[in-house]
Amino acid sequence: MTWTRQAVTVCDTTLRDGSHAVAHQLSRSDIGAYARAADRAGVDVVEVGHGNGLGASSLQVGLAAVSDREMLTTAREQLRTSRLGVLSIPGFAGIERDLKPALDCGVDEVRVGAHCTEADVTRQQITMLRSLGVSVKGLLLMSHMAAPRTLLEQARKMQDYGAEAVILMDSAGAYTASEVREKVGTLVENLTIAVGFHAHNNLGHSVANTLIAIESGAGVVDVTARGFGAGAGNAPLELVAANLELEKVESRIGLFAALDAADLAEQRFVRRIPTNDSVTIASGIAGVFSGFAAPTRRAAERFGVDPRDILMELGRRRVVAGQEDTITEVAIALAGAGPGERSA
Amino acid sequence: MTWTRQAVTVCDTTLRDGSHAVAHQLSRSDIGAYARAADRAGVDVVEVGHGNGLGASSLQVGLAAVSDREMLTTAREQLRTSRLGVLSIPGFAGIERDLKPALDCGVDEVRVGAHCTEADVTRQQITMLRSLGVSVKGLLLMSHMAAPRTLLEQARKMQDYGAEAVILMDSAGAYTASEVREKVGTLVENLTIAVGFHAHNNLGHSVANTLIAIESGAGVVDVTARGFGAGAGNAPLELVAANLELEKVESRIGLFAALDAADLAEQRFVRRIPTNDSVTIASGIAGVFSGFAAPTRRAAERFGVDPRDILMELGRRRVVAGQEDTITEVAIALAGAGPGERSA
Repeated sequence: MTWTRQAVTVCDTTLRDGSHAVAHQLSRSDIGAYARAADRAGVDVVEVGHGNGLGASSLQVGLAAVSDREMLTTAREQLRTSRLGVLSIPGFAGIERDLKPALDCGVDEVRVGAHCTEADVTRQQITMLRSLGVSVKGLLLMSHMAAPRTLLEQARKMQDYGAEAVILMDSAGAYTASEVREKVGTLVENLTIAVGFHAHNNLGHSVANTLIAIESGAGVVDVTARGFGAGAGNAPLELVAANLELEKVESRIGLFAALDAADLAEQRFVRRIPTNDSVTIASGIAGVFSGFAAPTRRAAERFGVDPRDILMELGRRRVVAGQEDTITEVAIALAGAGPGERSA
Repeated sequence: MTWTRQAVTVCDTTLRDGSHAVAHQLSRSDIGAYARAADRAGVDVVEVGHGNGLGASSLQVGLAAVSDREMLTTAREQLRTSRLGVLSIPGFAGIERDLKPALDCGVDEVRVGAHCTEADVTRQQITMLRSLGVSVKGLLLMSHMAAPRTLLEQARKMQDYGAEAVILMDSAGAYTASEVREKVGTLVENLTIAVGFHAHNNLGHSVANTLIAIESGAGVVDVTARGFGAGAGNAPLELVAANLELEKVESRIGLFAALDAADLAEQRFVRRIPTNDSVTIASGIAGVFSGFAAPTRRAAERFGVDPRDILMELGRRRVVAGQEDTITEVAIALAGAGPGERSA
């Protein structure tokens, strides 16, 4: 490989994206213990919170065991050199209700996310945060659904609002190697700010895609201990650490301390190490948000159809988060269609 | 990617390499059920046997629950279009005692393996099998330890003996992407027979490396359901199937039937889906055979040292299978050295 081998920034989102895997029930002591281990491992940013970010704890998307304030103050106490990060998705998080109190807890960095074609909705928050001098990055969710030029337009908006970096989120674990090269490469060539990549493992590429992103010029990558996350999970911190060492990519990570952090996560709260099955793989092939997997399994059971067929049809309809009602609609249609019309 | 997109042959070694994960205790009914599912999935070869191949069942490397003959006849009954394969490692397997009886059970293909610098030892078996008109392939074990030119010399010997293909085994899961390109590419360019790749997942690259091997011209790839195998496991059939479909690589695999086969394996006998921890990752970084992981954990416990330090030292000493005594020797040396000299 022809590595650019610039220093890479590692964002450990175990305590935020991983929350999805345990229905946002991480305890204060788990948060404190892992934040300390991640700090020792030398990750640049420890992102903490409800899986959907600040202000998202609710009956609808799941109540967190610990409040945003408690999570942040608990992690803050343990961090010596790592920065404390949060996710803000406008719609879940409000400026006065959520962002400002979070900053009061000592947050160093806010990542403001939106669906990959809706960067507009991040304008107000990014602008406000920059006016306060807060470090802020933009996240483009479900970025496999948009073409490179579209992603570039959206990323440019975030750059113009004042974001210091734009992260492409592979929310469905659907990127192939060539798509990583093309999309990360397009942004790296055309933006003046850093580009990042957030991998999921539905097609088994979380580690390789993270490395290809770095090779393509990405300066920020997201990881979680043991890939802790919903469904097929994320790029594991410990494997990314091992490969950064082997490929001689500069970072702040200490290999053995990163391995220790992941072992600690497994011992304390990773109840099930993320792996793939037919449903997570079909979700990756179809390019459907991982959050649809559980309700799809339930609908498949209820209507006696193959969950993979539901996911393939959802993929054809290009559904996005918020359109969960479509799952039932598709399941009913498939149940009526009979076996001949079902198989992909 | 610039795919050659030639048709690829898929060897499913779940019922052979996977045996390591359950101490060779697969039952006849598991073997029959999985062979049938793999046949339906359209894999080209179903490889069956003790983890170390024909004739290996013994007190020293583990007694199999079922004899070679029973395993082969059980699988044979279920195969309609897939070919029945076995592994033969000279030293474990003898011609009269093991190979000829296996052929009598209806074996279609024998793969004869040796350490990557010892192709000489495969000469007698490959020559004999070819003289009987049996399909035979050569396997170079621990192939990360030899340079591309060395592997080419060794592979040429197997080609000269009559092998129809040579498979590079990444026995320690230690290959980086660029090493796959270089080594597979060198063999593809210079051999007249097909080249194959057998991945392990210690560094998280089993799926990506399998695809890179195909992209580099490999015509044969090895898989197991859910990556079933010792330690970090192999390249999962179901993920390779998904990626072949996405990358439009021609094969006999049916995607949903492959997903079904893997689901069946998980339900019936994959007690623990292979994942990584500090020891499997250290084994990959050090390039130490995965079979050393369990005795290394025991020696580390006994002598109060870090198993990762043992593996790193074993890697520096370039140990290979058969040198298990070195584990204790290294553990004792590290225990005497004190913490200051231990850390990597």
